[in-house]
Amino acid sequence: MSAAADSQTRPFSEALKDAQTRITAHMAMRLAGGDELHAAMRYAITGGKMLRGFLVLESARLHGIAAEAALDAALAIECIHAYSLVHDDLPCMDNDDLRRGQPTVHKKWDEAMAVLAGDSLQTFAFELLADPKVGPNALTLIRGLAQSSGKDGMVSGQMLDIAAESASAPLNLEQITKLQSRKTGCLIEWSATAGAVLAGENPAQLRQYARALGLAFQIADDILDVEGDAAKVGKAVRKDADAGKATFVSLLGLAEAKARALSLCEEACAALSPYGEDAETLKEAARFVIARDS
Amino acid sequence: MSAAADSQTRPFSEALKDAQTRITAHMAMRLAGGDELHAAMRYAITGGKMLRGFLVLESARLHGIAAEAALDAALAIECIHAYSLVHDDLPCMDNDDLRRGQPTVHKKWDEAMAVLAGDSLQTFAFELLADPKVGPNALTLIRGLAQSSGKDGMVSGQMLDIAAESASAPLNLEQITKLQSRKTGCLIEWSATAGAVLAGENPAQLRQYARALGLAFQIADDILDVEGDAAKVGKAVRKDADAGKATFVSLLGLAEAKARALSLCEEACAALSPYGEDAETLKEAARFVIARDS
Repeated sequence: MSAAADSQTRPFSEALKDAQTRITAHMAMRLAGGDELHAAMRYAITGGKMLRGFLVLESARLHGIAAEAALDAALAIECIHAYSLVHDDLPCMDNDDLRRGQPTVHKKWDEAMAVLAGDSLQTFAFELLADPKVGPNALTLIRGLAQSSGKDGMVSGQMLDIAAESASAPLNLEQITKLQSRKTGCLIEWSATAGAVLAGENPAQLRQYARALGLAFQIADDILDVEGDAAKVGKAVRKDADAGKATFVSLLGLAEAKARALSLCEEACAALSPYGEDAETLKEAARFVIARDS
Repeated sequence: MSAAADSQTRPFSEALKDAQTRITAHMAMRLAGGDELHAAMRYAITGGKMLRGFLVLESARLHGIAAEAALDAALAIECIHAYSLVHDDLPCMDNDDLRRGQPTVHKKWDEAMAVLAGDSLQTFAFELLADPKVGPNALTLIRGLAQSSGKDGMVSGQMLDIAAESASAPLNLEQITKLQSRKTGCLIEWSATAGAVLAGENPAQLRQYARALGLAFQIADDILDVEGDAAKVGKAVRKDADAGKATFVSLLGLAEAKARALSLCEEACAALSPYGEDAETLKEAARFVIARDS
């Protein structure tokens, strides 16, 4: 479990920025088509934090896989994340006009384009992972991505979210934890374990890290919805609170939610102990997730 | 290129019915979840002709692959087809209330369910193909399906279709042929070649068959839009004609369109000559495609 000799452990902010640069360049190369559909697909991927893609590249580095060999997988998870946001922002879903401080795809183009760009972003993710360059563990990655993002993963989390809106009582802590683990946790877990899977090694420690990280991420999101500044967050805030939806903050209170996020962050870092100092960047990522202001 | 000893060449109507029964049973087993999302996914797959799934099973039989080993691929293509219909029927796309004589998913449930059921049908198709049971050529099938259905395949065909509606002049024959080969031809080609790919054999003859079949299929669709009976077709007819859209019928005239479909049918059958009598069922399928009334 040691990183390749030529790849150094770096500060998180530097590693994240490097991941954004590499993934964006890879997107420009792999998604170069000149029509409006390709333009909308690139627009949907661009401007995010690319935390999931970073987790792919960083877990790959920990397992001795060079960034070049993990870029298809890193771009693939950003495509899945982007597709879910484009469809989630549609008027019949969350009806959001702003995303990352920019007009959502259906505002910049129209709803038909948002449906089709989302559809083809999902397809493109699987096309990237089926590239022969991905190597002998591609099928495991594809199977995992489908299970994490489909009817028993992300999409089922979105269904639970919609059902909660018309439920007679707000969700309890167990229900909201299940909803969030499906809606966002599954894809974070896929991302953080992808490097071990690519290398054909055991992803158990990374899975433990990712589960704590995913929950911490969502609690931090709920805190941001209450405390955040819309200009920094880049989307509407206080939507959940105003809608009377159950969140970790409404269920635990602000202080307890912050304490819970902190303890999950510690749990995530502890899971990385077998990797020693090599895992410092991923530990910093966990600290960033609970401290971010956007 | 001979069929397995235990699988007989059968009349098309019998083979199609058998494919429908097997694929429906496989769906019930693989998509058994009790929630509304699973119910909407099953609803979207059910009741179609399952011509694409039949093509998978029949091309598999021609290459000595048992139906059991090809059912994941057959169900996968029906999932992709169903997802494209569910999204295509949305109000922001074609805005259709009826499909196969039944309410479309967004009429029976709502638009959010139609978006999410379509999304997870696409994901499920790739999950099925990534099942270890599919065998050593799964990755080739996955890559082909992504290329056929995404930004350079089916979805780009849908974009061309939408763009044609607001274009200043109707499409010409070359443009409509390109549009249709992407919108429906690509997936028919994937289906009819899947058996050879599964067996690791050369799909060249099946590809030639499928290209002629796909075009004949679309010409027949345009003829049905003019001559068909909505009750039999199971969806609105004369929509294209009333909208002034270019179709093979508007460009060629009804008689020439019918002659073209017939000649493509002969071309499709001729491509199968290396398979001898084993290919009789696929030849009958081509004749059915241009003679169907729904």
